[in-house]
Amino acid sequence: MNNLEIIKHIIVRGPLKLDCGEEISNFKIAYETYGKLNENKDNAILAFHALTGDQFASGTNPITNKEGWWSHALGPKKAIDTNKFFVICANVIGGCMGSYGPSSINEKTNSPIGTNFPVITINDMVNAQYYLLNHFKIEKLFGVIGGSMGGMQVLQFVSNFPEKAKVAIPIACTASHSAQNIAFNELGRQAIMADVNWKKGFYGDQKINPDKGLSVARMAAHITYLSKKGLQEKFGRKLQDRDSLKFGFEADFQIESYLRYQGSVFVDRFDANSYLYITRAMDYFDLNKQFGGNLSLAFNKTTTKFFIISFTSDWLYPTSENRDIVIALNAIGADVGFTEIESDKGHDSFLLNVPDFLGTLGNYLNTTYTNLNEKRV
Amino acid sequence: MNNLEIIKHIIVRGPLKLDCGEEISNFKIAYETYGKLNENKDNAILAFHALTGDQFASGTNPITNKEGWWSHALGPKKAIDTNKFFVICANVIGGCMGSYGPSSINEKTNSPIGTNFPVITINDMVNAQYYLLNHFKIEKLFGVIGGSMGGMQVLQFVSNFPEKAKVAIPIACTASHSAQNIAFNELGRQAIMADVNWKKGFYGDQKINPDKGLSVARMAAHITYLSKKGLQEKFGRKLQDRDSLKFGFEADFQIESYLRYQGSVFVDRFDANSYLYITRAMDYFDLNKQFGGNLSLAFNKTTTKFFIISFTSDWLYPTSENRDIVIALNAIGADVGFTEIESDKGHDSFLLNVPDFLGTLGNYLNTTYTNLNEKRV
Repeated sequence: MNNLEIIKHIIVRGPLKLDCGEEISNFKIAYETYGKLNENKDNAILAFHALTGDQFASGTNPITNKEGWWSHALGPKKAIDTNKFFVICANVIGGCMGSYGPSSINEKTNSPIGTNFPVITINDMVNAQYYLLNHFKIEKLFGVIGGSMGGMQVLQFVSNFPEKAKVAIPIACTASHSAQNIAFNELGRQAIMADVNWKKGFYGDQKINPDKGLSVARMAAHITYLSKKGLQEKFGRKLQDRDSLKFGFEADFQIESYLRYQGSVFVDRFDANSYLYITRAMDYFDLNKQFGGNLSLAFNKTTTKFFIISFTSDWLYPTSENRDIVIALNAIGADVGFTEIESDKGHDSFLLNVPDFLGTLGNYLNTTYTNLNEKRV
Repeated sequence: MNNLEIIKHIIVRGPLKLDCGEEISNFKIAYETYGKLNENKDNAILAFHALTGDQFASGTNPITNKEGWWSHALGPKKAIDTNKFFVICANVIGGCMGSYGPSSINEKTNSPIGTNFPVITINDMVNAQYYLLNHFKIEKLFGVIGGSMGGMQVLQFVSNFPEKAKVAIPIACTASHSAQNIAFNELGRQAIMADVNWKKGFYGDQKINPDKGLSVARMAAHITYLSKKGLQEKFGRKLQDRDSLKFGFEADFQIESYLRYQGSVFVDRFDANSYLYITRAMDYFDLNKQFGGNLSLAFNKTTTKFFIISFTSDWLYPTSENRDIVIALNAIGADVGFTEIESDKGHDSFLLNVPDFLGTLGNYLNTTYTNLNEKRV
């Protein structure tokens, strides 16, 4: 991960008090923007990324040279239309794309911070990104949006700052990480920590990375992003570059080859310690508990208009968990819309070209912007 | 794994031709029996174990000192009543409880065979166990039974030996391993092979085992054995021996502690290479393909009476895949019964004390035995 100096960032003076009790000061938040902030400053959207995402939501990531994770959804005339909206996307703290995280260099030791980095939460991530509003002198965002862990940040943002966004769109997420969610994350962490190169998180000094463990963690997560049916339709029992089984442990099946590939390309762009910290933040997320078991209280003060989107084949954050958020909002008479999109693509649907999803999202943003901003004048 | 000499076994002279093309001769099949073979020799049941099972289905395993995997289901007056039935259970080839497998010692080198062991299939496992019928001079079994990979062996057995069992009871299984099934198995294999102690399978020489990798593999598999709902009800977000989150990477949640425990106890009783070979056999299992895509043809010649059992919350081998077997049997007018048992316990239901399951199984075995054997006289 070189050339992080070219990345746009703010330095937050702080101090920011974290949930763990520590305070952090003078830390970096790396960000990217898309579109143009208008004169009224009423067209800004803060987009939150998921576990392995970063601020390069659209266009080409200059570090990895890969397409942004939401390139098909975010851009001129796309669902999130950057001819209309000014979109800010920041790398979460704990991440590895320029924001303050375990791979940041400790200037005293000239080594990566590693597992001396404090354990952070979704709440900490959101509070850190809030400084971007000051930076851009935005009094009120038009919207906050995100899928998966991005959706958790949407929920936490509105709860923390009930007057700061007109619209909130949490997608394919949950208000409280389930036992199965924690189990899969713990599996990934154990795979990383089992790697002899992890060295309790201080591998950065030796320039040897726990790539094998991180790759296994990615494979595990990847399976959970896809539906059983989707996997069967896409891969089934198709063989990889061979006509018959080879009676060995190489990749006979396409699904094996695909997972190995997903693991191998992931380690080139992601830091193993960041994976530990961010999954931990997800596991710790429990907005119910923050409000004594009554999720409605999280949104009691808000005037934000909600639109919640789930996907039929998402078994990681199933519709039922998304609907729990709708129920909590309905219970306090909040302004809330809800759509379940039909898709075989599993949890990954929010990252993929699912026309019903993109069409619904685009229509909602455009008509709501017109209703809330333009007609008001 | 010591004291394997005390284990009952037969030595199969062979040669047995394996699916991979190799022939094996003079190999061990370790087995255990429960109950007594009657004079007519018409009360024998061959029970097949699942991925990590062994021949010690009931009572105490003398090697691990743990309860047998089906102790609550198999014994005097239990669902599989050993006052009535004579049950034979063998360790599959490729296993590590005395049958010929990768941890068997190559007498020439005095080292474990390791990954020089041939890749075996469900078909090979079944053909090897068939020699037990000769050993016990049993002309025809009363039944064959097994869950998960044991169920696959039931299907393959009846297909290979259509006249050799009166009753076949495949439980919570599939006729063809799905892409998601292969994906989870590949994840486990990659975790093992990522362990620096695996040494391409020749760790046996060094007496250092790839325990960390095997533990991660077990954790991954274990998650798939339980339902999302079951995990939530049993563990939810309960904390482990603490009142609040500790903001670290120790096990804060009970589900984390539980998974770590499952991993740690597994490595004491199971061989990592056996895990590779047996998961490979499962992935290779595709009875449809053996019969040109027409599963019915697998059972065309059989007079065996089938009883297929699935569980509502099993997402590894869901009811739909069990029902595919029923459909194939119905298509040729076979004698087939089918029951889906209501259970929140996921795939593991067949190994647990699920009263509806055990009651149904017991009734079926007892009444069918009376109808097929006793009334016949």
